Amino acid sequence: MAERLIYLPLGGAGEIGMNAYVYGYGEPGRERLIVVDLGVTFGDMDSAPGIDLIMADVGWLEANRDRIEGIFITHGHEDHVGALGLLWPKIQKPVHCRRFTGALARLKLEEMGQPVDQLQIHAPRPEVITAGPFQVQFVPISHSIPESSALIIDTPAGRIVHTGDFKLDGTPVVGEAFDPIMWHEIAGEGQGIKVLACDSTNIFSPQPGRSEALLANPLLDFVMAQRQMVVATTFASNIARLKTLAEAGVAAGRKICLLGRAMRRMITVGIETGILTSFPPVVSPEEAAELPRDKVLLIVTGSQGERRAASAQLSRGRYLGIELKEGDSFLFSSRTIPGNERGVIRIQNQLSEMGVDLFDADDGVYHVSGHANRPDIEAVHDLLKPQIVIPMHGEHMHLREHAKLATKKGLAAMVATNGDMIDLTGPVPRVVDQIDTGRLYLDGSVLIGAMDGVVRDRIRMALNGHAMVSVIIDEDDSPLPDAWVELSGLPETGRAGVPVAQSIEGELAEFLDRADGKTVRNDDKLEEAIRKITRQVSMEEIGKKPEVTVIISRLAAE
Amino acid sequence: MAERLIYLPLGGAGEIGMNAYVYGYGEPGRERLIVVDLGVTFGDMDSAPGIDLIMADVGWLEANRDRIEGIFITHGHEDHVGALGLLWPKIQKPVHCRRFTGALARLKLEEMGQPVDQLQIHAPRPEVITAGPFQVQFVPISHSIPESSALIIDTPAGRIVHTGDFKLDGTPVVGEAFDPIMWHEIAGEGQGIKVLACDSTNIFSPQPGRSEALLANPLLDFVMAQRQMVVATTFASNIARLKTLAEAGVAAGRKICLLGRAMRRMITVGIETGILTSFPPVVSPEEAAELPRDKVLLIVTGSQGERRAASAQLSRGRYLGIELKEGDSFLFSSRTIPGNERGVIRIQNQLSEMGVDLFDADDGVYHVSGHANRPDIEAVHDLLKPQIVIPMHGEHMHLREHAKLATKKGLAAMVATNGDMIDLTGPVPRVVDQIDTGRLYLDGSVLIGAMDGVVRDRIRMALNGHAMVSVIIDEDDSPLPDAWVELSGLPETGRAGVPVAQSIEGELAEFLDRADGKTVRNDDKLEEAIRKITRQVSMEEIGKKPEVTVIISRLAAE
Repeated sequence: MAERLIYLPLGGAGEIGMNAYVYGYGEPGRERLIVVDLGVTFGDMDSAPGIDLIMADVGWLEANRDRIEGIFITHGHEDHVGALGLLWPKIQKPVHCRRFTGALARLKLEEMGQPVDQLQIHAPRPEVITAGPFQVQFVPISHSIPESSALIIDTPAGRIVHTGDFKLDGTPVVGEAFDPIMWHEIAGEGQGIKVLACDSTNIFSPQPGRSEALLANPLLDFVMAQRQMVVATTFASNIARLKTLAEAGVAAGRKICLLGRAMRRMITVGIETGILTSFPPVVSPEEAAELPRDKVLLIVTGSQGERRAASAQLSRGRYLGIELKEGDSFLFSSRTIPGNERGVIRIQNQLSEMGVDLFDADDGVYHVSGHANRPDIEAVHDLLKPQIVIPMHGEHMHLREHAKLATKKGLAAMVATNGDMIDLTGPVPRVVDQIDTGRLYLDGSVLIGAMDGVVRDRIRMALNGHAMVSVIIDEDDSPLPDAWVELSGLPETGRAGVPVAQSIEGELAEFLDRADGKTVRNDDKLEEAIRKITRQVSMEEIGKKPEVTVIISRLAAE
Repeated sequence: MAERLIYLPLGGAGEIGMNAYVYGYGEPGRERLIVVDLGVTFGDMDSAPGIDLIMADVGWLEANRDRIEGIFITHGHEDHVGALGLLWPKIQKPVHCRRFTGALARLKLEEMGQPVDQLQIHAPRPEVITAGPFQVQFVPISHSIPESSALIIDTPAGRIVHTGDFKLDGTPVVGEAFDPIMWHEIAGEGQGIKVLACDSTNIFSPQPGRSEALLANPLLDFVMAQRQMVVATTFASNIARLKTLAEAGVAAGRKICLLGRAMRRMITVGIETGILTSFPPVVSPEEAAELPRDKVLLIVTGSQGERRAASAQLSRGRYLGIELKEGDSFLFSSRTIPGNERGVIRIQNQLSEMGVDLFDADDGVYHVSGHANRPDIEAVHDLLKPQIVIPMHGEHMHLREHAKLATKKGLAAMVATNGDMIDLTGPVPRVVDQIDTGRLYLDGSVLIGAMDGVVRDRIRMALNGHAMVSVIIDEDDSPLPDAWVELSGLPETGRAGVPVAQSIEGELAEFLDRADGKTVRNDDKLEEAIRKITRQVSMEEIGKKPEVTVIISRLAAE
């Protein structure tokens, strides 16, 4: 059979977060494969209460492990590398990165006790990595973390450019600038570019993106204008922003103090890997607490309202000896990711109660996005002149809008979401298979499937409460007269003015007294009857049908 | 003792939603009281899973019921009238409204089986309602629902203007325009205005608000430009918007179909109360389904992503015989309220998967806010020239910003949040008491306190899962060797590769076998020991400590 080139997103296509993409080349069903990125996304109470991390279900990769040539990581954001340590055991192939990303990838592997010798650190283009039928180059591109890379993936069927996350920034403060001339060369080599798999997250932003360097003056003006303590929060991995903030602080005569483990780690990794050649000296929280309030700039984690990050800690009172006060200033040098509003607003109100003045980045003066906006995406289409555009990384609406844009420009385009296997060999993309995919959840120390029912049961208990009933059947298959009922997450007293549990126990005692032997001897029947009575009495008493767990204990004849 | 004028917010001050304010006049501790608004807010999975409605805890009003003269409702939004039926039994005093608001208030009372003869319908100013020492007038003001009213509350200590929710709209499409001349008169009467209690929700919006009437042309252009079915969603109570949308549809040659019970009810109430003098004829969903796709405009509920509203139903497939298709258009003529993003995005993606084109109001072309922005609030300060400004209805940060604005203009201002009793008698406001306040939750058919622990337990079960253990102690105070364990919302298999429940049962059996009599005879001690073992084994097996419920059944000697 003729060989073919395939694209298979397992995560990130139809959602923002948990990126995981597969490319393959070879005979159908026997393609050699490479994996691009293994990221996570974060759960929330609405859909995944108690879940620590969410990632793509890589069952298909596990089943086809012998066909995989390697894993390539484009950059060090959690939604691109966060699942590496957790999923590596299912794949067990070499991991390719550049130096800074590699340092973060190493931490992910170490955390999960996976072998770090699988990590291979590469220089950017012109270095070429051969992985089966693929020739891969890391190409510097700008983003909100240093050393973000697009991939050139050369295959016998043509050249793919996989952008990873990117923006067009000629002055990114830290890391490599977007280099249109190099990209022009890349587009001109050989047969040109067959496929552009391209970041779609900001397709609905109509203005051209703005450079990181534009923030230096506004941030300096901002810090200069404040009279007491200044706190600024942003993503820890946005090292350029940390540097701009810190330099603004120093220029305004303040000492810099970093709060939050992730932030200190990023600076360390940045310096160790040579990405960050200069960063102002920092003081410890203890030193900062001793300084006059107008001589300190705190740069802290928790811009998305995370409950355990430094921002939230400061909003709740004294943290590491530092306490915010009336007249202090708190800057969100960040954008609130949709879905995180409640957490951010909670912190903002707590700060307001302390008398802290809030400065919000949602107006864009103190923040720029790390992603290409619609005109930037269009510019990349024009620059690279691909035959096919595959919109990547975005909710369905982003992918669809991106595909419409490409189609309007006369390019072949297709919306492919997680699990769609696309044949890219011909002039237009074609769906050739649908792979069972889904999400894995890290719950405590265990990986579970999103559809295992664990989370469904948690959500049900949270919405409906939980009633537990214990009944005992004696040696002669007669129920003991008392049933014990315990309620959790339910009002104690109902319409009858007595404890709801007591009302249920009363009804159950009556039922058990007259239950026939056939029902009593059958666990399923007995349980079903008890559940029904419990829900019925609850409904009458409190207008709610709880989840019910029944434990039937059968006493054995001694 | 000298008489005094007090203000006491019980809800809405330090949050957006569940408005409930109290004014009092008289000797300290014996003031006669009026209540302004009794609204609800809505729970979410993060803070109140399974809770149907949230409202102010009016325990203080209940305890001082004999001092209350009446309840005044400013307008018909849920966050101002939604708790009336639920809380009326605790207050049991006459309810004063204008006609349209009264029709909605009547529905609230009827739903909860409360007497509707307590409802008194009033004409706007110049009608004066006497309630103890208070002389109250309803004054028309514009908002996103018809007949919104500010209150003039004349007291022996001076005149209060309580704005309710408002905007400055000279052309509100439906209902009364903002009338600056009347407000100028109001400010000029007698001693002028002592206190302005003023809506703060939009204090951070720097541009002057825009009129509802500005939407007619953009909405008509929008509908004219669409080629297939058009769906528009907005708040059901925004009758002006419904009318503008419907008229745009008719002008574009389409039939109008309203989907969602709340929407049809609002139109009915609007027509019955004379608020709405004309509305285009509507067709039923069955008729709409039969019409050519380019001849229909659906106006539907669910702009905030509510799971059971018409928008969500349509996003999931066929609804009342109507199914959206590739090329249809869906307009959000609304703003997403912070915290509702996840639900809205879910619907938008599902629509995108159907091929429906999305038009989003967050850019403001197809939506205007119902609240006064910062310059509008400032204009009201200037127009009314109050002695004291009390920022009302807003998160803490809104109230604080509003107070700063007033102070800068030389007005006395104070941030008062729920439970702060403020003395307004003198030239500057003064905190004189702190009332125990909080939130009540409607859970099924029961009102519970937010701090009762019910919701706390639900959140814990959702985050940690729930383990139930049943042990039986026989007639001789000896535990039976087997403990039964059931897990809910927890992974089935742990590190040991066997069911987690089985691992726990094993450890518990060992413990019960060697437990001393003192522990076994004491329920608390036994329960504590069992809980500890259960959590320990879970932690080892799955890295998580679940909530644990223990049921100890003691067999009685027969």
